[in-house]
Amino acid sequence: MFPMERILHGVMRFRMEVVPRRLGLYRELANGQRPQALFIACADSRVAPELITQADPGELFTCRNAGNIVPPYGQATGGVSAAIEYAVMALGVRDIVVCGHSDCGAMKGILHPEALAGMPTVRTWLNHAEVARRVVEANGPTVDKLQALVEENVLAQLDHLRTHPSVAAHLAAGDMTLHGWVYSLATSEVRAFDAEQHRFVPLGSTAVPAVSARRRPIAARRGDVRG
Amino acid sequence: MFPMERILHGVMRFRMEVVPRRLGLYRELANGQRPQALFIACADSRVAPELITQADPGELFTCRNAGNIVPPYGQATGGVSAAIEYAVMALGVRDIVVCGHSDCGAMKGILHPEALAGMPTVRTWLNHAEVARRVVEANGPTVDKLQALVEENVLAQLDHLRTHPSVAAHLAAGDMTLHGWVYSLATSEVRAFDAEQHRFVPLGSTAVPAVSARRRPIAARRGDVRG
Amino acid sequence: MFPMERILHGVMRFRMEVVPRRLGLYRELANGQRPQALFIACADSRVAPELITQADPGELFTCRNAGNIVPPYGQATGGVSAAIEYAVMALGVRDIVVCGHSDCGAMKGILHPEALAGMPTVRTWLNHAEVARRVVEANGPTVDKLQALVEENVLAQLDHLRTHPSVAAHLAAGDMTLHGWVYSLATSEVRAFDAEQHRFVPLGSTAVPAVSARRRPIAARRGDVRG
Amino acid sequence: MFPMERILHGVMRFRMEVVPRRLGLYRELANGQRPQALFIACADSRVAPELITQADPGELFTCRNAGNIVPPYGQATGGVSAAIEYAVMALGVRDIVVCGHSDCGAMKGILHPEALAGMPTVRTWLNHAEVARRVVEANGPTVDKLQALVEENVLAQLDHLRTHPSVAAHLAAGDMTLHGWVYSLATSEVRAFDAEQHRFVPLGSTAVPAVSARRRPIAARRGDVRG
Amino acid sequence: MFPMERILHGVMRFRMEVVPRRLGLYRELANGQRPQALFIACADSRVAPELITQADPGELFTCRNAGNIVPPYGQATGGVSAAIEYAVMALGVRDIVVCGHSDCGAMKGILHPEALAGMPTVRTWLNHAEVARRVVEANGPTVDKLQALVEENVLAQLDHLRTHPSVAAHLAAGDMTLHGWVYSLATSEVRAFDAEQHRFVPLGSTAVPAVSARRRPIAARRGDVRG
Amino acid sequence: MFPMERILHGVMRFRMEVVPRRLGLYRELANGQRPQALFIACADSRVAPELITQADPGELFTCRNAGNIVPPYGQATGGVSAAIEYAVMALGVRDIVVCGHSDCGAMKGILHPEALAGMPTVRTWLNHAEVARRVVEANGPTVDKLQALVEENVLAQLDHLRTHPSVAAHLAAGDMTLHGWVYSLATSEVRAFDAEQHRFVPLGSTAVPAVSARRRPIAARRGDVRG
Ligand SMILES: [Zn+2]
Ligand SMILES: [Zn+2]
Ligand SMILES: [Zn+2]
Ligand SMILES: [Zn+2]
Ligand SMILES: [Zn+2]
Ligand SMILES: [Zn+2]
Repeated sequence: MFPMERILHGVMRFRMEVVPRRLGLYRELANGQRPQALFIACADSRVAPELITQADPGELFTCRNAGNIVPPYGQATGGVSAAIEYAVMALGVRDIVVCGHSDCGAMKGILHPEALAGMPTVRTWLNHAEVARRVVEANGPTVDKLQALVEENVLAQLDHLRTHPSVAAHLAAGDMTLHGWVYSLATSEVRAFDAEQHRFVPLGSTAVPAVSARRRPIAARRGDVRG
Repeated sequence: MFPMERILHGVMRFRMEVVPRRLGLYRELANGQRPQALFIACADSRVAPELITQADPGELFTCRNAGNIVPPYGQATGGVSAAIEYAVMALGVRDIVVCGHSDCGAMKGILHPEALAGMPTVRTWLNHAEVARRVVEANGPTVDKLQALVEENVLAQLDHLRTHPSVAAHLAAGDMTLHGWVYSLATSEVRAFDAEQHRFVPLGSTAVPAVSARRRPIAARRGDVRG
Repeated sequence: MFPMERILHGVMRFRMEVVPRRLGLYRELANGQRPQALFIACADSRVAPELITQADPGELFTCRNAGNIVPPYGQATGGVSAAIEYAVMALGVRDIVVCGHSDCGAMKGILHPEALAGMPTVRTWLNHAEVARRVVEANGPTVDKLQALVEENVLAQLDHLRTHPSVAAHLAAGDMTLHGWVYSLATSEVRAFDAEQHRFVPLGSTAVPAVSARRRPIAARRGDVRG
Repeated sequence: MFPMERILHGVMRFRMEVVPRRLGLYRELANGQRPQALFIACADSRVAPELITQADPGELFTCRNAGNIVPPYGQATGGVSAAIEYAVMALGVRDIVVCGHSDCGAMKGILHPEALAGMPTVRTWLNHAEVARRVVEANGPTVDKLQALVEENVLAQLDHLRTHPSVAAHLAAGDMTLHGWVYSLATSEVRAFDAEQHRFVPLGSTAVPAVSARRRPIAARRGDVRG
Repeated sequence: MFPMERILHGVMRFRMEVVPRRLGLYRELANGQRPQALFIACADSRVAPELITQADPGELFTCRNAGNIVPPYGQATGGVSAAIEYAVMALGVRDIVVCGHSDCGAMKGILHPEALAGMPTVRTWLNHAEVARRVVEANGPTVDKLQALVEENVLAQLDHLRTHPSVAAHLAAGDMTLHGWVYSLATSEVRAFDAEQHRFVPLGSTAVPAVSARRRPIAARRGDVRG
Repeated sequence: MFPMERILHGVMRFRMEVVPRRLGLYRELANGQRPQALFIACADSRVAPELITQADPGELFTCRNAGNIVPPYGQATGGVSAAIEYAVMALGVRDIVVCGHSDCGAMKGILHPEALAGMPTVRTWLNHAEVARRVVEANGPTVDKLQALVEENVLAQLDHLRTHPSVAAHLAAGDMTLHGWVYSLATSEVRAFDAEQHRFVPLGSTAVPAVSARRRPIAARRGDVRG
């Protein structure tokens, strides 16, 4: 069976077998979406967010690109920035997950740029993870750099998230939470960054290891700034 | 149950119940991916490609953004362009699907720009669908513009795909196929653009309604160009 | 005689000898232009569009740059994009010719990048022909690559033209025609791309070998799209 | 006769009647170009540089765009910058003409931006003439602003030319000349900026009214710079 | 006395009176700089960093722009990004101060955009403080918004600093400190952000209220990441 | 004493000792600034404009970056362009000084690019001085290239200044003056470019060696332009 035939059969199966089992849900969704989170993941074929989280359709507003990158907010804005703005402002999403994964081809490419020869667009894109590469180069291990880079990259992209006005406004208001996850293909385990412990811990071992909740009271509420 | 708790429970269920049932597949995937297609879809929470196509993990290299946009190739390249280049050149993908959907918030925003007030990044991003908007404005219906726009947008993004060198090289070689799909939330039906009939037809009604296969012999093979 | 002197004498001759012979035409033109086509050609000194087509002043809105390039529509728009938009929207032009030529220095530079060392701006500009280079590299001849590249470049720029909203809207409406030409300096012959035969044929051997006429009916006219 | 038919007939006439009369010249040109000047003019159909200067093929390397614009050198370089770099460095051109004209639609659009509504790309492009608009707004006449703007625009683009490294290097060396011209459609007269008189004068009334010749000795030749 | 005359007299006085008093220092500085900090301040004429800190020449590598802005790291990098990279990598600076001030015209312009009408470049630049504006709009006071914005802007620019690879690498290594200051023109007091107390406190009231010191151990040092 | 401690002590000293001595001036400044000039200088720690000119707070609107660069006006505008626009349009500044200096690390980096390896942002930024480098390469000395480059860079940035609409408008009006200075660390001398003599001369040796005053009458005032 050719690849696309297999996919076409899946489309038929979805309509004939999957939808009828939950017709109510699908009918309701035809009228609109109310996702509970924005999920930013790698385009890698093995890390489908809906699979890993067993989410129903309608639950995750999903942005996927090579390397689960979040460019910082700026003038040359693109698809990820638009997805963030739309999720937060139009859909009212208040939880954002950035999810990296083991064996990531994008992260491997950063460590071995020669593998990306002839792919200038990929290299330019992965420049948004340059900050993670430099952190690992300067401080990381001499072996297993890939694992360190996957984690640092998630943290770097969380830092980038904070530069987006829609995100920053809600972080300051204390009603948004950012989550940094790494999914291990070998163990199927998801580990989340715990801001208290300053490290990644298995998801579920604690309540919700939020990376960022409320940053601080802003000046206006303290009433103690002077001109 | 809070939103994130539900998601966390899903993560546990995935690891405890879903993975064990197909342990062989998941173990194999830990060593690498060999996806059969690049799937470019909207970030909308209701249109998960793996669900609609019932694809297994490892089958679809997935790029998702608001409006299933493909910016044309150029100097200011971003995540979608990188995903295309990586899928074609590093992973050897030879089928690319651009999949729009009914009730798309991004397309609605294009028709009603006032709904995107305060979202400058979204508006800038959706400028990549300006070509579809203008086609519909100039030639489209006075009612049901949304449906026309969803279809035209898929075709416009396929035109953009052709401007990417990695795609064009394989189209010229005749070993790549582009697919333009629209998924209807109301009927669960997927319709694909049929280049012969110049319109969208229900998927499965024919073999594979490819949008683009082999464009033409290039000069070199004809031996009839003169200086 | 120094170069500029020769040019200055030409300016005098134009005013004293050329204009008086067709005073009516020149007087009429002082009041406005109604060009019949947008002609995009190389800046090469040997390929003046008005000469090759024996056009009168007032007939061709002419955009010339190194390599007869048409960048795809996008956010970082420049002079070619502006010329297209102005020609179509302000002047009502409905025929667009992209004309390449044999012995093109820009195309040679693409095949021999070392010839462009020290010219970073030229290299960046010619990146818009990267798609043609890749097509030729992947599928083209091992000899006479230049001829193949000249033709592929014209086709690539026609693909880029389609991404411009003003062009796409009229293509969909069926009232615009794109022409892909190659001018041979050795034979003075112009060959045009024939979409039916999928190859370049001598101009004049058929009626008008249009590259693109009417693409397809859009959804609105079929009345068969479902939500 | 349809517009394109007329053009096609011209192409035939060029090959059958024009070329044979000067076969020697055309044969020689097939082997390469040695243009005497870079000519930057408006895309307007009425201002063909080869017509106005009565230049033979092979004499003018010609860059044409809406408004005879020269963007300043920078990171977001485009077609005009590439043409300049190629003309100066690859072809050895040492005379550059920027030629504006009366009744210019681009300049009218700057004075009446409402005429460019719906043409965002044109407006962005003409931002490179913003400097001329501001000069005229601040100091110009209250009537006949268009004439002032056409002249100021030529001078502004000459200022932009100086920011291009290839141009500046030769200006400093004293072996390059810049020319600022305005062509009047009503009188067929060309007027050139005279740097001595600080105004435009009829071309031919003096020798060569160069805008810029040798700027100054650079430090190295004076030997008087101290650390 | 005309403005420039006063400045010229100052230049004379500097050379004749100021330098001779500390000839040793000035002679030593002729051979190179070893600044102790990178100081990013507003271009405002009243907030000279060397004055406020009573620093000697050679002590502060100083970057000044309207609004003491630090654009996030990215592809469209400019002067501030270059100054950061140069200070950290070429000069070895390990302390960075971002210093805002009361009565800042740039911050006023953000709150009252109509004051920036006709200044598109300023508005575009201040977009880098959009994140601070949104934080204040969403959470701030209804009166005295300016004071809140000045503080939030300093914090936003510190967030942007973290996205720069050279900064992030040293923050991770624990050998760099970021400082967020606000200088009050009315009281001559400098207040610094204290990360512990989550608010600005008078400088000097504690030791060094660092905004950021060591972020966390990276994966490599924990040895506990799994594939 | 640690570096930051020394700086903190300076802040205390400023408030306790410096401000009280000129309390009137500081009180007045709290209400607004009326700077007499825009001063664009290098970020180098040894070239504080307020020190070199002995200027009081409130006198110099100061923009500092690595290499005292002024990018030409354009679409990708940044901090320097914003500072210029704000100084001229919001503050009414009519004198602009671009001040380079001997032993400049940025200029050294241009001559020895290998010294900037690993600093891509710095290299990109210094591309704005490429025009000066090319002038020196083509015409400069074989020894002491640095001194020539420092001077040429100041002149190149003055050329860039002219491309800014706010500057050009006032130059045309004749009410703005540009100054090109070079500060020598070895001799504490400032030399200014004299447009009459076409070279740098010691400041103060003449009245005010203005680089640019009034450019020319514009068309409107001559009343002699014809359509
Ligand atoms: Zn990945
Ligand atoms: Zn959608
Ligand atoms: Zn050519
Ligand atoms: Zn024109
Ligand atoms: Zn300020
Ligand atoms: Zn310097």
